[in-house]
Amino acid sequence: MTMNKTPVFLLTMGDPAGIGPEIAVKALCGEAMSNRPYRVAVVGDVEILRKAADVCKISPAFNIVDDPGDAKGFGINVIDMGEITTSQFTPGQPQAPCGHAAYRYIIKAIDLTMEKKAAGVVTNPISKESLKLAGIDYPGHTEIFADKTGTRDYSMVFLLDGVAVAHVTTHVSLRQAIDLVTKDRVLRQIRLLHRSLKSLGIDPPRMAVSGLNPHAGENGLFGDEEIREIIPAVSEARAAGIDIAGPLPPDTVFNRAFSGEFNGVVSMLHDHGFVALKSRDFERGVNITTGLPIIRTSVGHGTAFDKAWSGRASPASLLSALEAAYIIT
Amino acid sequence: MTMNKTPVFLLTMGDPAGIGPEIAVKALCGEAMSNRPYRVAVVGDVEILRKAADVCKISPAFNIVDDPGDAKGFGINVIDMGEITTSQFTPGQPQAPCGHAAYRYIIKAIDLTMEKKAAGVVTNPISKESLKLAGIDYPGHTEIFADKTGTRDYSMVFLLDGVAVAHVTTHVSLRQAIDLVTKDRVLRQIRLLHRSLKSLGIDPPRMAVSGLNPHAGENGLFGDEEIREIIPAVSEARAAGIDIAGPLPPDTVFNRAFSGEFNGVVSMLHDHGFVALKSRDFERGVNITTGLPIIRTSVGHGTAFDKAWSGRASPASLLSALEAAYIIT
Repeated sequence: MTMNKTPVFLLTMGDPAGIGPEIAVKALCGEAMSNRPYRVAVVGDVEILRKAADVCKISPAFNIVDDPGDAKGFGINVIDMGEITTSQFTPGQPQAPCGHAAYRYIIKAIDLTMEKKAAGVVTNPISKESLKLAGIDYPGHTEIFADKTGTRDYSMVFLLDGVAVAHVTTHVSLRQAIDLVTKDRVLRQIRLLHRSLKSLGIDPPRMAVSGLNPHAGENGLFGDEEIREIIPAVSEARAAGIDIAGPLPPDTVFNRAFSGEFNGVVSMLHDHGFVALKSRDFERGVNITTGLPIIRTSVGHGTAFDKAWSGRASPASLLSALEAAYIIT
Repeated sequence: MTMNKTPVFLLTMGDPAGIGPEIAVKALCGEAMSNRPYRVAVVGDVEILRKAADVCKISPAFNIVDDPGDAKGFGINVIDMGEITTSQFTPGQPQAPCGHAAYRYIIKAIDLTMEKKAAGVVTNPISKESLKLAGIDYPGHTEIFADKTGTRDYSMVFLLDGVAVAHVTTHVSLRQAIDLVTKDRVLRQIRLLHRSLKSLGIDPPRMAVSGLNPHAGENGLFGDEEIREIIPAVSEARAAGIDIAGPLPPDTVFNRAFSGEFNGVVSMLHDHGFVALKSRDFERGVNITTGLPIIRTSVGHGTAFDKAWSGRASPASLLSALEAAYIIT
């Protein structure tokens, strides 16, 4: 036996009823994982992972481990939580038992990483609705990580092709999102993205801020949030020495970034940034939470309940998320 | 002299301070236009077009014509309106004289086409702000065409790579857009897009409707407009025999369409549809107004004041718009 000293990343299994289990087994027993300079241990339920492998018609070796340090460099290492079995949930829909189990995997992964037993956490998708049904009151992963690690000033950035996108609002209704576009919140995301770009080695940051309204309001014709909130935030950021353009129209700013003009964009709405990113590449994008005391990356997609447990889901984003976690270690 | 019987399309010059004049001269004297089975006459001001050609370092032949039927098959045909000269405006910004001139070009093109003197109208970008400064109270081209042709039931669709996108809201503030997402308006756009797809030869229509909120509201967690307005509209459309999926998350529905699953998408917001379309291809998209008694297509972009009169603007979308006008003749 040789000691394997490569870093170990904890991969949460995600919502059992979603595509997490299948993309986990696909990613970890695929060609892409062999000879990587790191190991991975899934925090989940091994019985579910076995069934997911059956659905995907693959037969990996599973290694049950208690300590991430015992993870092997081959097969699928599992920290077996015993939270739920395949007989206890219906694939492809939100339900309380899955929300509860998904949450427990996350907490375990955070705890082990905070105890320095792992190098970081990579998360599979969860269902916010399942969480809510389980009585767990977090809008998403990021808030759980911030809360459990005692972090106040964090930022989630989405990284694709050298462009990092931060959002001023994400998982709230559109009506609420508009109210959340305030000067202070925009300025905070500008500062966090600026710091994130540097921590990701994207330097010097060349940033742009997107507008909220069509055509960025066209000088107040279609809404005045740009004039009241966004422009004052941009002015203050510039006064602090940050190189930032905008507010630019939401339907042009991302193109200009991917054309090389900017390497960071502050987006006002979930469905400005994510529509642009997913239109460019649906599979390779990666979420990174910056500002936390531990590394955390995530797949860029959701639970995909509509195709879960059919064996059709692609592990491409998960593989990118694992790779990103290693790169920023 | 030979009689040239190919159809003539009228191309409005657009806002003089925008990129309209330069992309017009670039498109019409480029290689792409030779040997096309149609002719084009610009409705604009020849002095401005000459200056735009200078900026682009090209020296086309200009033919002044009064009747579109006299347009030649070579050079740049111009219906010279005498509205404004280069000394009367500042490039790259909204201003009343440009709004007024741009409006007059549109009215002339509509009038000539309604009189059957031309086969259709292709429009260059105008500035809604310039229009407003000129005291002309239309939010955009489409409403002018509808009003001047006495059309009530029209629809503007954006066409790219075999996918047609219709918007429930466009040039209004985001706050107002939310209030405009009503069952009646969603259903109306579903019906119009269904009809448009058939008129564009995209048959059978396979349609999807996008949600308004992130994740299409995730069953009411992030906003209830999907439950209150959009789902009832989809149900009624289905009852009427329309094949339509959704509401689907705004950040996945467009990808699914471009992957071949749908050929028509009803988008709730300007910056769902346009972010997706422009992220996929910034230059080739085309606007088509369906339901009018005359053909009207348009470039897919705006005035681009930030780079107007620098000679850098691409005529790609304009060439696509001309081609689309000919195809649907």
